[in-house]
Amino acid sequence: MTTEQAFGVVLKRLRAEKQISQEALALESGLDRTFISLLERGRRQPSLSTIFQISNPLGVEAHELVKVVMEELKNQENG
Amino acid sequence: MTTEQAFGVVLKRLRAEKQISQEALALESGLDRTFISLLERGRRQPSLSTIFQISNPLGVEAHELVKVVMEELKNQENG
Repeated sequence: MTTEQAFGVVLKRLRAEKQISQEALALESGLDRTFISLLERGRRQPSLSTIFQISNPLGVEAHELVKVVMEELKNQENG
Repeated sequence: MTTEQAFGVVLKRLRAEKQISQEALALESGLDRTFISLLERGRRQPSLSTIFQISNPLGVEAHELVKVVMEELKNQENG
């Protein structure tokens, strides 16, 4: 699993937990809905700015988001 | 101060604390020395992969690095 795939999995999961649509997340984060869709599918690499922009609407801090992605990567390696 | 400028300041500071050259950091992280130089000058945006690659040789976890950058940004806003 690549970094961007792990990020995509986590992003999709947090958005589902928060029960917000890609459209709503796009609006709140200032990112494009298409870009969010690509991120969730692991087709784009998030930059640090993207991580900062997207974390707040997801109800987490940027560094917490990175930690969850790191844990997702480790789980995949062990599983 | 932009996200990439804050990242550059933190990267340069951590590298100085760790007392490693850009060359050594490049070798250990698998990144190009020129790219590290651009990052330190806030001229490039780090991706999540870059953050993962560069944190370990700096002796920090990726999420800790992001937290320090966030604090740097906040300090600049308040200062």
